[in-house]
Amino acid sequence: MSTRFKLVLEYDGTGLVGWQRQDNGPSVQAALEAAVLAFTAETVTAVAAGRTDAGVHALGQVVHVDLARDWPPDTVRDALNAHLRPQPIAVLKAAAVAPTFHARFDAIERRYRYRLIARRSPLTLERGRAWHAPAELDQGAMAAAASQIVGHHDFTSFRAAECQAPSPVKTLDALEVSRQGDEIWVEARARSFLHSQVRIMVGTLKAVGEGRLTAADMARILAARDRAAAGVTAPPDGLYLVSVRYP
Amino acid sequence: MSTRFKLVLEYDGTGLVGWQRQDNGPSVQAALEAAVLAFTAETVTAVAAGRTDAGVHALGQVVHVDLARDWPPDTVRDALNAHLRPQPIAVLKAAAVAPTFHARFDAIERRYRYRLIARRSPLTLERGRAWHAPAELDQGAMAAAASQIVGHHDFTSFRAAECQAPSPVKTLDALEVSRQGDEIWVEARARSFLHSQVRIMVGTLKAVGEGRLTAADMARILAARDRAAAGVTAPPDGLYLVSVRYP
Repeated sequence: MSTRFKLVLEYDGTGLVGWQRQDNGPSVQAALEAAVLAFTAETVTAVAAGRTDAGVHALGQVVHVDLARDWPPDTVRDALNAHLRPQPIAVLKAAAVAPTFHARFDAIERRYRYRLIARRSPLTLERGRAWHAPAELDQGAMAAAASQIVGHHDFTSFRAAECQAPSPVKTLDALEVSRQGDEIWVEARARSFLHSQVRIMVGTLKAVGEGRLTAADMARILAARDRAAAGVTAPPDGLYLVSVRYP
Repeated sequence: MSTRFKLVLEYDGTGLVGWQRQDNGPSVQAALEAAVLAFTAETVTAVAAGRTDAGVHALGQVVHVDLARDWPPDTVRDALNAHLRPQPIAVLKAAAVAPTFHARFDAIERRYRYRLIARRSPLTLERGRAWHAPAELDQGAMAAAASQIVGHHDFTSFRAAECQAPSPVKTLDALEVSRQGDEIWVEARARSFLHSQVRIMVGTLKAVGEGRLTAADMARILAARDRAAAGVTAPPDGLYLVSVRYP
């Protein structure tokens, strides 16, 4: 009997090809599976709640792996961190869970944050960690636009061409725009999202903030069910998978 | 007649040898002077309020430079930013000032922030931007210790051997310890500081936070007037020059 461990991961997505193992560069999945191999000599498949894209960061990605022994959870956390070094990937928590727990299928809520910094000067310390908006953004207009698309809808307009979800219908539980100084956060909560949905919503909201679209346009774009109606896909560096919730 | 410009700079100190021009690597001063040369074909000497060390960051470093023409300040800011690219150095503000203004000698207050992150797991997104403390820190004890050394004192115990200040006597206006989640900030304000003073104070406060020293030890260390009595010099990556004040 193996033991299933639930891991909470934080990572800097810069320079990574994303969560999923790929041939063209370092992935979080491959790094974690290699750390497990170095720790217990077991070849495992790590399953994540959210398959973050290249360049996307995580503050609280959730993953499960099966290990042959029922290690003390803190030992799992510390050993994996030791083997992950010096990669910018850290296990924040480890816990033994029921063998039926599934990081991806059991998740009932995923929370993402997108950081925009609206200022004339280029970014320095926040480069690769936020989207630079050189012109002022109208936060009120962005918030009004965001409220137009919360709820149960066909999100085809906000879906990447490569999306493999069986249906474009999703329930967006929250899409909130807040501001502190020159930094604007767009926070999204849903059971699940379509591929690039958050980034396309943010790219469209930025156009609203710049006055190129109105809040009313947002409802029109949603109703169009056409990716071409929405704005650009926001770059990955501003996006953070904040947390994943389970029953 | 030339025009003196006051510039407010932000930079990521990672990979830089510090503010001051040196033979062994890229400095903020050399980058800024090169940007001026590219902009106006003038060879200038940039003077900064704080000569930050290698790896130290700035959110609001203040600098002055003299240019032959009285350019619109926004033109100076934008042109310098264009020429500073892609280095992680940005001019946040530019303003024409009196020809007698001196960024270093006229400063009446410098404010520094030191970021510590107390958690078991290694840092990822904050690597190079904070000091990782793997064990818990007692913020209350650190705050009590910090209060012991505020005021007008001989800070020889908190002075690097290479310090060239004529006197070790300084007035420390504030040394405050605050906490949000696992992040602890030590903020220091003074007209001026000795070389590495903030980093040695932080290194000593961390030892207090870990229980290796007490708040009372802090007063004893100050009174000793001996660098060997204090703690280690905290690494540069957690230190930020936040702002500089003028009359």
